[in-house]
Amino acid sequence: MSRIVYVNGDYLPEEEAKVSVFDRGFLFADAVYEVTSILDGKIIAFDGHAKRLKRSLGELQMQNPITTEDLLEVHHQLVKRNELTEGMIYLQISRGNPGDRDFAFPSEDVTPTVVLFTQTANLLNNPKVATGMKVISVEDQRWARRDIKTTQLLFPSMAKMMAKAAGVDDAWMVEDGHVTEGSSNNAYIVKDGKIITRNLGHEILHGITRAAVLAYAEAAQMQIEERPFTIDEAKNADEAFITSASTFVMPVVEIDGVALGDGKPGKSAARLREIYLDESMKQAL
Amino acid sequence: MSRIVYVNGDYLPEEEAKVSVFDRGFLFADAVYEVTSILDGKIIAFDGHAKRLKRSLGELQMQNPITTEDLLEVHHQLVKRNELTEGMIYLQISRGNPGDRDFAFPSEDVTPTVVLFTQTANLLNNPKVATGMKVISVEDQRWARRDIKTTQLLFPSMAKMMAKAAGVDDAWMVEDGHVTEGSSNNAYIVKDGKIITRNLGHEILHGITRAAVLAYAEAAQMQIEERPFTIDEAKNADEAFITSASTFVMPVVEIDGVALGDGKPGKSAARLREIYLDESMKQAL
Repeated sequence: MSRIVYVNGDYLPEEEAKVSVFDRGFLFADAVYEVTSILDGKIIAFDGHAKRLKRSLGELQMQNPITTEDLLEVHHQLVKRNELTEGMIYLQISRGNPGDRDFAFPSEDVTPTVVLFTQTANLLNNPKVATGMKVISVEDQRWARRDIKTTQLLFPSMAKMMAKAAGVDDAWMVEDGHVTEGSSNNAYIVKDGKIITRNLGHEILHGITRAAVLAYAEAAQMQIEERPFTIDEAKNADEAFITSASTFVMPVVEIDGVALGDGKPGKSAARLREIYLDESMKQAL
Repeated sequence: MSRIVYVNGDYLPEEEAKVSVFDRGFLFADAVYEVTSILDGKIIAFDGHAKRLKRSLGELQMQNPITTEDLLEVHHQLVKRNELTEGMIYLQISRGNPGDRDFAFPSEDVTPTVVLFTQTANLLNNPKVATGMKVISVEDQRWARRDIKTTQLLFPSMAKMMAKAAGVDDAWMVEDGHVTEGSSNNAYIVKDGKIITRNLGHEILHGITRAAVLAYAEAAQMQIEERPFTIDEAKNADEAFITSASTFVMPVVEIDGVALGDGKPGKSAARLREIYLDESMKQAL
């Protein structure tokens, strides 16, 4: 079955889901996006993603072409029309097609382009939960505003390829000696029972899963320290993990060839994954 | 008349010139581009742009889906079919549509997307030649590999908007206290008869017009110094200018509100523009 994709108000077979070559999303990466997970046919953390989408649009002075209510309805339609039980919904808004190519933003009468599509994926039973992920560190070469969730994703893609070439699962990016985040996830280490993760700023994405997991960790009386940490600190940690909308909480067992602790997925990651999934499913829409 | 646009082998009316929403150019800014100028119906500096395109593709390990000969033929077809006498041809190659969205590069059997289109513009009689451009300085927030001509152009677009908001023509980007380049052009200052422009590296685009202009300047016995310079140095310069494929050589008369020299377009810029246009027209294809 061909997927049904949403493009600017229409539900189209994926082969017909297209945008103009003049779209600023294609020519300038002038676009923002969100990814939400679907579990048991329900949307995880929709409100958080909708809120961050608005923030990204605001930071780029891009018009918001769709209400949160309509956006939720499109999500539900896509779940239904694609009979999606487990996977993701990808959402992208670009600044639209002004006709001629010009670096300057177009006038307000150019309507942003809205695209949403589904992807099926095995999220709950991701085999990496049992084995843990291995990562390498790479220099962070991205632009300065990683807090805005734009489609300028070439470097994260390159980092993923570096990880692949090194025979591992992902790359943690390092800037000025400190870890920023993973290629498409937030990064955490655990030392002496304390969870350490980079504090928010322009340097990292303000993860929706990150915010939820830290809140659950705090409620569970776990110690949290939000600050930059080095790769050396990470290699000496007792355990490590990542969070993202589609991996939830995922253990990391090796960094740059160094096994963490006993080399097996850690207890904090396992506990936080369980709490996160329990709580998120309760609130799923 | 609707423009005729080239998309993957087809010449289409611009309304039908579309790419899949799954194209990596749209989702990841995983795409490179070139812009060549057309004067009197002929292509300026085609060989240089074709060579840089190959380099960009190579740096990103992206397949080259089209020979230089075929690319030249598409350029000529677009000039002819659109009756273009003066303007630009924009060319973009993205890593194509692998179906599902995934940070990792797709396998080799996914064919890159090739798009070319024309834009009409008044290049020779650009009114800024007579008045000169005013620029402001802004912090350079782009990614680290500006030598690869990718479509990650959101920050340059934002910089252009900052310039607009400040009532000037463009922004010069500054990193670690030194000017990298303009939002879509290379930057130069002239002091005591010496032309100073940033040396090549990952920090700036390796301008095709830059290379030609520096070669002509050298042939004309002008002194050249390739090194980083500060905004303060620029404000104290006798004159300044920019180069790019579509502005050729364009004088800059004001930086951050400070008039350079007598506040009028400088002699070096005028001379280099003349030489560049003369020589380029002779070699146009």
